[in-house]
Amino acid sequence: MLLPRYITGIRRLALPQPSAEHLPAPPVGILNDVWIEIADGSVIRIGPEGEPAPPDAASEQVWDASGMLATPGLVDPHTHPVFVETRQGEFVRRCRGESYSQIAAAGGGILSSVRGVRAASEGKLVGLLLGRLDRFLELGTTTIEAKSGYGLTAEDELKSLRALRAASAQHPIGISPTLLAAHVVPPEYRDDPDRYVDIVCDRIIPQAAEQGLVEAVDLFLEEGAFNLSQAQRIFEAGRQAGLGLRIHADQFTSSGGAELAAEFGALSADHMDRTDEAGILHLARAGVTVVLLPGAVFFLGLEDYAPARRIIELGCRIALSTDFNPGSSPTQSLPLMMTLGCIKMGLTPAEALWAATMGGASATHRADRSGTLLPGYDADICLWEAEDIDCIPYACGDMIPAAVFKRGRLVAERGRRVEPDGR
Amino acid sequence: MLLPRYITGIRRLALPQPSAEHLPAPPVGILNDVWIEIADGSVIRIGPEGEPAPPDAASEQVWDASGMLATPGLVDPHTHPVFVETRQGEFVRRCRGESYSQIAAAGGGILSSVRGVRAASEGKLVGLLLGRLDRFLELGTTTIEAKSGYGLTAEDELKSLRALRAASAQHPIGISPTLLAAHVVPPEYRDDPDRYVDIVCDRIIPQAAEQGLVEAVDLFLEEGAFNLSQAQRIFEAGRQAGLGLRIHADQFTSSGGAELAAEFGALSADHMDRTDEAGILHLARAGVTVVLLPGAVFFLGLEDYAPARRIIELGCRIALSTDFNPGSSPTQSLPLMMTLGCIKMGLTPAEALWAATMGGASATHRADRSGTLLPGYDADICLWEAEDIDCIPYACGDMIPAAVFKRGRLVAERGRRVEPDGR
Repeated sequence: MLLPRYITGIRRLALPQPSAEHLPAPPVGILNDVWIEIADGSVIRIGPEGEPAPPDAASEQVWDASGMLATPGLVDPHTHPVFVETRQGEFVRRCRGESYSQIAAAGGGILSSVRGVRAASEGKLVGLLLGRLDRFLELGTTTIEAKSGYGLTAEDELKSLRALRAASAQHPIGISPTLLAAHVVPPEYRDDPDRYVDIVCDRIIPQAAEQGLVEAVDLFLEEGAFNLSQAQRIFEAGRQAGLGLRIHADQFTSSGGAELAAEFGALSADHMDRTDEAGILHLARAGVTVVLLPGAVFFLGLEDYAPARRIIELGCRIALSTDFNPGSSPTQSLPLMMTLGCIKMGLTPAEALWAATMGGASATHRADRSGTLLPGYDADICLWEAEDIDCIPYACGDMIPAAVFKRGRLVAERGRRVEPDGR
Repeated sequence: MLLPRYITGIRRLALPQPSAEHLPAPPVGILNDVWIEIADGSVIRIGPEGEPAPPDAASEQVWDASGMLATPGLVDPHTHPVFVETRQGEFVRRCRGESYSQIAAAGGGILSSVRGVRAASEGKLVGLLLGRLDRFLELGTTTIEAKSGYGLTAEDELKSLRALRAASAQHPIGISPTLLAAHVVPPEYRDDPDRYVDIVCDRIIPQAAEQGLVEAVDLFLEEGAFNLSQAQRIFEAGRQAGLGLRIHADQFTSSGGAELAAEFGALSADHMDRTDEAGILHLARAGVTVVLLPGAVFFLGLEDYAPARRIIELGCRIALSTDFNPGSSPTQSLPLMMTLGCIKMGLTPAEALWAATMGGASATHRADRSGTLLPGYDADICLWEAEDIDCIPYACGDMIPAAVFKRGRLVAERGRRVEPDGR
């Protein structure tokens, strides 16, 4: 049963409430003993509480969820999946006491992934991407934002984005592609970073937009990456190209990124581990979603998690993301991020689930079709062998959905990708 | 091919070195491009480096590991799998700011699991155990130490141990059973804990030993659990019954547990998050394995990880364990513990792998048959789709073995248990 009309016997259905503009994370509604009706990839009806199956359902139309928990498919709004080699060697060096910045200064870090992507063919990138996209689905993530950013030339950034487009065409996961040409200054422009910013603004952003390869432009505002005036120019160019805007900021140092994101009405401001209250208030007023990336804090052995409770209290919408990348966050598991969100940031499991569904949908401009399972929304559904939503973060990443549906089609079962022909 | 004679095409074979008495973790040897020959559940031969398959192997005798990493099956020397309900509700309370001790004082914590086990039949416990044992295998763990400790009466402790024995008889995983009647003082003896210690020493320990249900006796030395003189009595009784000795100590407060474990020549001293240098030196001299439990520190939102580097430097043998239990460490993933060991305790990936294999084997008195894959050792083997051992902790628990063999038999494949008939 790859394309059921009904999912029945749902013990609990978690319905994250759609985000109202400028409001903090609203709660997650729970319905008990319900069924869902699906047509053309969308939820069209939810049965009344206490009715495990519609009276008229024929057995061949039914996927029996027999007592499971149903949540929306997870939405991951910040990933860097277009790379070649994993970077476990740097992990070993960090275990021995070197810092991420020391490793980057010695030619490791982002630049080592840049060498890999520049040397790779588009086809090779597509092949690597497909395996990683499978893994996201297996872990319950049905939509990701995905960035370029390891090319750092017009040619290699566009190659990365074309690889994303080609992989997306062959894969059920939803992808929101982002241009991150302004990830770091490439070595060949180390002595003239503004010249590289010219190329980003005058060539790479317009070309990516014209070719319809991206929904948004992102940049890394940080000592050693780009400064505030360069960031401003890149945001201007992105806005002019009609693209959404994102920013990596305040990860290692506080830099004014929150104010910039607010001023430009960015879709998301990401990391925000060191943002002060004034910055958070700017983001709240401007309705910018704060994307929390606890995986990078954890994996880098740091403890300065973003002040998520304060961010919520001050009125910001939050999302949770893996920040999947080979250097600072190699995990693809949003359930593990939910655990970190609860343990390290004081989120409740309901807030963590909201942030990993509706929060991600808001940050990727999909809050009208992803992130919840109300009628009209995409039938992106995870079924979990769990009593309630609390069990997901409680399990520390051990819990994997028993079944994952993308637009109504079964795509993964117990940690294995299901192919369209049922394999 | 459930029972191959050869595992061929192993790109890298990790061979943790057997532990010499009183020495810290020795290194992990690596052989490239080798095969393993298995007979009667044991490794009998390792092929020469650079020879992917023995020239005379018939294809029907071969499991082709085609480029994978092989490690010994993981050995988890500290688990509490005999419980009924998961305790995600307490997790939610902790996310909201209550402490583990506050929750325990309000009737949650260990005592809530005691109510569940006392009310459960042996058959119900066996059923629950079998699912959890499957999960250990799927995650790469082929041997566990498993404790009672949620019964706290002679009847319920022996019921828990019989459930372990019955589950073990139906399941391929190796189990080293431990009596933990001295987990906490049961509510009915709150006003006379010494009376409960009498029962533990005079009835429960002798009965468990006579019935051949256990290999070791464990106890929890901590404020609110048992004190030093009670611990001494329990160790005396365990020694008299001819059992190995273990201790949970120095988790929340420093208590003299290290000295006691050294004095009695215990198999293991577990937690040791707050042990001072003098205590560590005692353990080192006595050859007691220190079992590190970073999962509990992580899940309780604490940061006082055991000083693992110092413990190694001072000459102690270490092991890593999940501490799997429903209150303070619900994960069953030793790979995730390896990640925590590296990130939070400064272990290298080789040390973490050693601790999760040979370390666990030492702590369960199995260092002569488990924990490495030298000829003569049990053919407990994990195959990983990984370039090298560094990839396992790097993956933050995302990496699950592609195949797991127990005594030469395929028991799990890509996160799914394989039944003896190949299902």
